[in-house]
Amino acid sequence: MSKVNLKDKFGLFSEHWTPKIVGELNGQYVKLAKVQGDFLWHSHEEEDEMFLVVKGALTIHFRDRKIDIEEGEFFIVPKGVEHRPEASEETHVLLVEPKTTAHTGTLKTALTVEHLEWI
Amino acid sequence: MSKVNLKDKFGLFSEHWTPKIVGELNGQYVKLAKVQGDFLWHSHEEEDEMFLVVKGALTIHFRDRKIDIEEGEFFIVPKGVEHRPEASEETHVLLVEPKTTAHTGTLKTALTVEHLEWI
Repeated sequence: MSKVNLKDKFGLFSEHWTPKIVGELNGQYVKLAKVQGDFLWHSHEEEDEMFLVVKGALTIHFRDRKIDIEEGEFFIVPKGVEHRPEASEETHVLLVEPKTTAHTGTLKTALTVEHLEWI
Repeated sequence: MSKVNLKDKFGLFSEHWTPKIVGELNGQYVKLAKVQGDFLWHSHEEEDEMFLVVKGALTIHFRDRKIDIEEGEFFIVPKGVEHRPEASEETHVLLVEPKTTAHTGTLKTALTVEHLEWI
């Protein structure tokens, strides 16, 4: 039972596209990620995924459109929907998703981190 | 599938201690609440509750201590733990908790809102 300061936690790591776990509730993890550049197309079969932009701006591409999410905005990607996140500059994102969610979805690639770290 | 701008949503209501639903993922609701003054002691038997302070400052009292949560910080109250939120000035909070969570926990009082509104 301790509080989490987002700015302090973002100060603890610098890697891109490697979410860190900062909280857990009701079978979900709260994660923080620094992102920049392109990520890969993926989907999560059974899991909705929330992206809250804390700093910067995130574009989420879908097969038929894209959505720009600015600081202070969030978007929930429904389960099963293919998406590709992208950020032109370094962006800080808070994620909420089930503990079972793999960040590259059903894909295993060089970008896949098997065991996410608690910070 | 549309994004949510927190500032815009907070601009849509003025009541205190009456969370509004702004999103849903994996059986959880994302809610926004404006709070000021004292709330009541309560607990949620089976549900963890996340409080992210978007503006202002929130104190959560526990029976043995209290925690001050500032803007940009979050705290997760574990299920079963009695707590009493308080804010000396108007504070904006983002909540994540199961759809089944009643905001006054197991109590039904004059403060209890039975059906929370989507905005």
